[in-house]
Amino acid sequence: MANSDVFTVENLGECKIANPIRYSLVSGDALAGYVTDEQRIMYDVARVAGAEPRSFTTGELLELAGPREKVFFPAQHVHAGIVTCGGLCPGLNDVIRAIVRCLWHQYGVRRISGIPFGYNGLLPEFNHTPIDLNPDEVDDIHKIGGTILGTSRGGGERTAELVDAIERMNINMLFTIGGDGTQKGALALASEIEQRKLKAAIIGVPKTIDNDLQFIQRSFGFETAVGKATEAVVSAHGEAHSAVYGVGLVKVMGRESGFIAAHTALASHEANFCLIPEVAFDLEGKNGLFQYLHDRLRRRNHAVIIVAEGAGQEHLSASGASDASGNKRLGDIGVYLKQRIVEHFDSLNVNVNLKYIDPSYTIRSAEAAPTDAVYCSRLGNNAVHAAMAGKTKTLIGLVNNHFVHLPIPVAVASRNYVDPESSLWRDVVEATQQPVVMKN
Amino acid sequence: MANSDVFTVENLGECKIANPIRYSLVSGDALAGYVTDEQRIMYDVARVAGAEPRSFTTGELLELAGPREKVFFPAQHVHAGIVTCGGLCPGLNDVIRAIVRCLWHQYGVRRISGIPFGYNGLLPEFNHTPIDLNPDEVDDIHKIGGTILGTSRGGGERTAELVDAIERMNINMLFTIGGDGTQKGALALASEIEQRKLKAAIIGVPKTIDNDLQFIQRSFGFETAVGKATEAVVSAHGEAHSAVYGVGLVKVMGRESGFIAAHTALASHEANFCLIPEVAFDLEGKNGLFQYLHDRLRRRNHAVIIVAEGAGQEHLSASGASDASGNKRLGDIGVYLKQRIVEHFDSLNVNVNLKYIDPSYTIRSAEAAPTDAVYCSRLGNNAVHAAMAGKTKTLIGLVNNHFVHLPIPVAVASRNYVDPESSLWRDVVEATQQPVVMKN
Amino acid sequence: MANSDVFTVENLGECKIANPIRYSLVSGDALAGYVTDEQRIMYDVARVAGAEPRSFTTGELLELAGPREKVFFPAQHVHAGIVTCGGLCPGLNDVIRAIVRCLWHQYGVRRISGIPFGYNGLLPEFNHTPIDLNPDEVDDIHKIGGTILGTSRGGGERTAELVDAIERMNINMLFTIGGDGTQKGALALASEIEQRKLKAAIIGVPKTIDNDLQFIQRSFGFETAVGKATEAVVSAHGEAHSAVYGVGLVKVMGRESGFIAAHTALASHEANFCLIPEVAFDLEGKNGLFQYLHDRLRRRNHAVIIVAEGAGQEHLSASGASDASGNKRLGDIGVYLKQRIVEHFDSLNVNVNLKYIDPSYTIRSAEAAPTDAVYCSRLGNNAVHAAMAGKTKTLIGLVNNHFVHLPIPVAVASRNYVDPESSLWRDVVEATQQPVVMKN
Amino acid sequence: MANSDVFTVENLGECKIANPIRYSLVSGDALAGYVTDEQRIMYDVARVAGAEPRSFTTGELLELAGPREKVFFPAQHVHAGIVTCGGLCPGLNDVIRAIVRCLWHQYGVRRISGIPFGYNGLLPEFNHTPIDLNPDEVDDIHKIGGTILGTSRGGGERTAELVDAIERMNINMLFTIGGDGTQKGALALASEIEQRKLKAAIIGVPKTIDNDLQFIQRSFGFETAVGKATEAVVSAHGEAHSAVYGVGLVKVMGRESGFIAAHTALASHEANFCLIPEVAFDLEGKNGLFQYLHDRLRRRNHAVIIVAEGAGQEHLSASGASDASGNKRLGDIGVYLKQRIVEHFDSLNVNVNLKYIDPSYTIRSAEAAPTDAVYCSRLGNNAVHAAMAGKTKTLIGLVNNHFVHLPIPVAVASRNYVDPESSLWRDVVEATQQPVVMKN
Repeated sequence: MANSDVFTVENLGECKIANPIRYSLVSGDALAGYVTDEQRIMYDVARVAGAEPRSFTTGELLELAGPREKVFFPAQHVHAGIVTCGGLCPGLNDVIRAIVRCLWHQYGVRRISGIPFGYNGLLPEFNHTPIDLNPDEVDDIHKIGGTILGTSRGGGERTAELVDAIERMNINMLFTIGGDGTQKGALALASEIEQRKLKAAIIGVPKTIDNDLQFIQRSFGFETAVGKATEAVVSAHGEAHSAVYGVGLVKVMGRESGFIAAHTALASHEANFCLIPEVAFDLEGKNGLFQYLHDRLRRRNHAVIIVAEGAGQEHLSASGASDASGNKRLGDIGVYLKQRIVEHFDSLNVNVNLKYIDPSYTIRSAEAAPTDAVYCSRLGNNAVHAAMAGKTKTLIGLVNNHFVHLPIPVAVASRNYVDPESSLWRDVVEATQQPVVMKN
Repeated sequence: MANSDVFTVENLGECKIANPIRYSLVSGDALAGYVTDEQRIMYDVARVAGAEPRSFTTGELLELAGPREKVFFPAQHVHAGIVTCGGLCPGLNDVIRAIVRCLWHQYGVRRISGIPFGYNGLLPEFNHTPIDLNPDEVDDIHKIGGTILGTSRGGGERTAELVDAIERMNINMLFTIGGDGTQKGALALASEIEQRKLKAAIIGVPKTIDNDLQFIQRSFGFETAVGKATEAVVSAHGEAHSAVYGVGLVKVMGRESGFIAAHTALASHEANFCLIPEVAFDLEGKNGLFQYLHDRLRRRNHAVIIVAEGAGQEHLSASGASDASGNKRLGDIGVYLKQRIVEHFDSLNVNVNLKYIDPSYTIRSAEAAPTDAVYCSRLGNNAVHAAMAGKTKTLIGLVNNHFVHLPIPVAVASRNYVDPESSLWRDVVEATQQPVVMKN
Repeated sequence: MANSDVFTVENLGECKIANPIRYSLVSGDALAGYVTDEQRIMYDVARVAGAEPRSFTTGELLELAGPREKVFFPAQHVHAGIVTCGGLCPGLNDVIRAIVRCLWHQYGVRRISGIPFGYNGLLPEFNHTPIDLNPDEVDDIHKIGGTILGTSRGGGERTAELVDAIERMNINMLFTIGGDGTQKGALALASEIEQRKLKAAIIGVPKTIDNDLQFIQRSFGFETAVGKATEAVVSAHGEAHSAVYGVGLVKVMGRESGFIAAHTALASHEANFCLIPEVAFDLEGKNGLFQYLHDRLRRRNHAVIIVAEGAGQEHLSASGASDASGNKRLGDIGVYLKQRIVEHFDSLNVNVNLKYIDPSYTIRSAEAAPTDAVYCSRLGNNAVHAAMAGKTKTLIGLVNNHFVHLPIPVAVASRNYVDPESSLWRDVVEATQQPVVMKN
Repeated sequence: MANSDVFTVENLGECKIANPIRYSLVSGDALAGYVTDEQRIMYDVARVAGAEPRSFTTGELLELAGPREKVFFPAQHVHAGIVTCGGLCPGLNDVIRAIVRCLWHQYGVRRISGIPFGYNGLLPEFNHTPIDLNPDEVDDIHKIGGTILGTSRGGGERTAELVDAIERMNINMLFTIGGDGTQKGALALASEIEQRKLKAAIIGVPKTIDNDLQFIQRSFGFETAVGKATEAVVSAHGEAHSAVYGVGLVKVMGRESGFIAAHTALASHEANFCLIPEVAFDLEGKNGLFQYLHDRLRRRNHAVIIVAEGAGQEHLSASGASDASGNKRLGDIGVYLKQRIVEHFDSLNVNVNLKYIDPSYTIRSAEAAPTDAVYCSRLGNNAVHAAMAGKTKTLIGLVNNHFVHLPIPVAVASRNYVDPESSLWRDVVEATQQPVVMKN
């Protein structure tokens, strides 16, 4: 695959059917328009002034999402499936709702099946019955956290059996809402479908509460997560400032990327230390966390620490094991830090009042905040447009404020991290006033 | 001004003083970095595949915001002023807080004056006393709506007097937080300052709850506004669905641009009609609102309408007058629609139960939602970095997820509108299922 | 009816059927117990020390609500109806949910009909179809404001037709959730039922967001209303304190009783004037509101006023008309005060920035706050226990923290008012620091 | 102390000074009134119909709180102290605010000292400096969780040293906001003060988030706690219903009394099991929790369990130790149940997805909900009225909706428990549909 083809989106075949939604291709007629396969969005917008103007290659451009003038599937022959996999994330029901409504109202699709409890819901041994979905069924589901379809980990690796089920159910359009592992599974499904010469579209809606997906400017549920995490930090601050040498310690999600921690530090205005996987830190010694924490307590009597779950793993003897989603099992840095801080100050005969808060489950299961509700609604619509146009092996993403088609292989190839040299991290350091480096 | 210079940022002069914040210019050392004046961000990211690769010109590039290696002002000689003007907007106190803290903690500035009640606070006749600002003073202000400095409309046109005051107070750095009119006033101030050969930086933080500023991807407070407006729509829906032929009518802000209305329609999942200034609509006739509303009521017994304050002005005989901020006085479309809908159905002997909600003041005065808190915090930091580096006549904006310097003349030259042909409006039409065109 | 009988609850007849819920009559066995008809609650708890100990009469005692050892109706022959009437009030769906669940799960009743849109839903001319209710149907309805049954005003006066419908549908148990007018209608229904020698229980759940029902310590939805009204006052305060001579004016519900206004003043901690129907006030003159408002503005630059909708009606020329619920049409004191305040200060050439907020519809349609959710849940249970035991012409109320049976004739005979000599009003005056008397 | 004296409130001496607040003693003049020492409130309101009318004794009557016509202290000689002790509870700052404002605005007291970090703040060894309190200082503190004075456990037993400090500071009025232990300490202080023949009033505001104080109908912060706990249960439900055999387990506060658990079960409408200290339960066996949980999972696929921290202690081998407040250290029933449930189902080869949430610190540190804000505001006022009138050894409580004076010895003599035979517990059992008894 040449570099210039890296962002090329795969199609099931030529689109020959007029789109039943009556949009317009004419620019200037004030009617919402179809999108063509030629419309692209630049990904990297950083440039240097005065540099030799350079041209850009196809490989830098992402296909714009949206309804096409012609579609691949006749609506009356569509049987769409929707599956949600992995951990909960705010907005799952909003995405489901948008997919169902767009299929039904815009395209006239009448057969939509919710796959219960993740990929496993397709495997006969689990005996799950698909859920008939329609606009009435999904009308109020955005008011409920979690996913009405249920979710589970694993199952995605049993490609052949899954495609057997897809064949059996005669599903020709599958929406896979899930993380990295889920989308790798989706890619395998699509390849197997291709090999069996079936015509079934696989469209993914990437779900990662950690916001760690490369290319995509933010993942759905992330802003809700920051909002809920901020509430926890406000609580931790309330506890800390009311006690002698009060320390509020909040663990937030972020296995490899500290975006929730960083944004929460900025949103809460109350954190004094923000610890993320991307920035290593010492505990002991002149430049270690304990010393800086002690300084802060002496100066201000209280302190608030946000720690991402993946931070400081070098201090823990992790097992090396993985869960059913293929995620590395992490040591519990929150509990560890809590113990170590208490021990440290005990050894100095200094009494600290540490309160530890782990709000993870209250974050994951929250209703989508309004910004995420908007986002999920639009992700779902664009996923439907993509599927109807016969796109496959494709994720829907937001890049520079435009919805685009992202080929799954590219999207899952690498992750997004908080760059310690970025303006985001700089703003966190300025907000917390923590040392730029806590290493001896 | 040649096209290639359109985005050129003005400076007070050469920066010769080492930045007191110890960042790094080295890439790869994991230390947050200085930004150089050569770092740019592309504004327009839309491209067409297969088109002849074209180079871009300087004129398409915006200067990246952030701390410079050298600064213009010695911190000990800085007297910074902060002024908030015009209507309330969520996040004002967050911006003030960030500016004060960045000046104080990062740069060591110790003289920071809050100008009370807008530009008028600088005019002797109002007898207002500036407010001494420091980190303790602003510590908890993000928990309070409104602006701790107070605000008012007008005064910005009295350029000479304002600069007299700035000279009298020896202010050499003024942060103007306000809308279009405020920033035009700021530009005039900066020009007068230049003519008087003073060295005072004018940095604007654009405030427009309507999100109608060209170039900037969203204005602070906008997402909070959508969140609060969404609550009103949920209420309207509760009223409407509990009544026979219940109609919930919600007026939201949006004088010339319907962004709040459009996003609220998407966020709430409950609106059936979204009326914005950019899309004209008929009331009467086969394709008018009343007919479609009647159809909806027959089908579903209730309906929810969101109307932006600037929508449908063609139906009103507006006075043509303006307020002290120079904004055109609008007719009250909310009250008008309420009356007309009731009259229409009365004339048909159909009883509708219309509940009208105008949540404007509860929106404007809300605390910033977490996403806006993050944004405001970063806007404030970047405003300080710009001012310390001697930038002037410049706004801080967010473009393609990067903070940039926007020359005021460019930024205030045009507005941002909801494009009826855009994917945003398309998604609104799909969510509401309203007719694409409501014109006979 | 002798005084000692005033609180006597009417029954349809002797209860002969063992209660299918297996509670216990034994005290001390740690099992939840049946309640007997002899268990009573004192209403008036004020006494004077040292006074001759006096006995009390039956007339001071209210019958305790709760499950009886024997019930009147065999569950398999019950057809229960539920109707919601009048304006919205937080908690309606919670009450419906509790009634349905208690009937179904505790007693095994399987025929439960929701009457659509108030009493009118029983009248053939409106062509409404009853809604089949069961636990699945009502499972999530507490997450939605309003009432899933719909509501309307009026209809309750058409007693004979309503009882015709009750006979036609074979309903032998009707739960009437509504205000004064609704319960008067319910009483008429019960009397007509009695005359026709039918055996149908009429049990009311009193709904009055104004909390103006005599005997009952608070009505459901009231605390939610105070919470939402408090949010509006916080907004008004945000607007007021950010402006020069800022005045925030908030109108809250309270037609004849100022409980919402009084509690909101206490809850918000931000109000400077609280105006209620029970306390008359002058506008003009040395001791009028305008003068005190001016003083406050001079002293503190801003002020917040809460006004109950029924306050100051003496200043308005009301029409004397009534709405379909029989409520007197009130003049709009909010809009009136707004105009008069602006005019007053204009006449003094003093510029005030008045922001007027009327949050009524966002209050009425809110989800029940947790304390109301608890309350509604218990009201519903007790309503079912009463109906199953063949009580009729009875409301469920909370008196001195006990759920009791209140005969409808007593309960609707008089209203509850804020006593200006009470500790509640004293605390409001202390909190607002408003003058005890604003009369010349 | 004879039974009839049990509720007698102690006074420092005769009140001879006219109350500076101009209330009225006249009934019917529409002016808020003074309260006399003779006004009483009945505590027990349960009666049996038809029983011989019996008189009541003084011992059943509680003194009504409120301003007296004459006060004991001249305002200009008052030095008031306020101390907050023990764990956080929503509303602490609201109580502090009300006390300060009532002292200052109503009585004209100008010396008010906040004692930092509990009783320890009075002990010289801790070197804490009292905080000067006035209305400006406390204006916005209700927006912040925790206590602005800080709190700590212990110190209250060092009576002599504390009274030394009170003498040294010349404090003649101390408001002790805290739990059981705090009020026992307050009683000892008052006795020591009496013995030293000092004239200093000790007035307690009882704080117990568990709502376990005898006589008082609810403690401040309790309803806020229920509200926040309810949010956690909604999260647990979201997790549980989205998983195969999902179990949400939420631990809430309630060391000896299960009121928070019981009310949360009712408020959330989502709990299937509510476990409290007052009702023992087996885990294993036919009637044990595990069996019922398994049944529920088979029937409905998910389950939510609320457990009070003091429930099921018989299953744990507690240490028998106590904390600095004298509270027995409890075993962690939440963590224990989590492990046991997982082990149990593992042993059956049944996979359950258990999510455990412990929201305690986010509950304790929450801002007061509106109903608690009202309550705290009134508690504070009444505490001030009591102190100014020279009451001592007295708590302020709410009994049958009236604020009363409770002698500390009586109030701390016993606790309040959830009576398993009460209507509260009956309603919980009906709401959860859990077995009445889970014992073999």
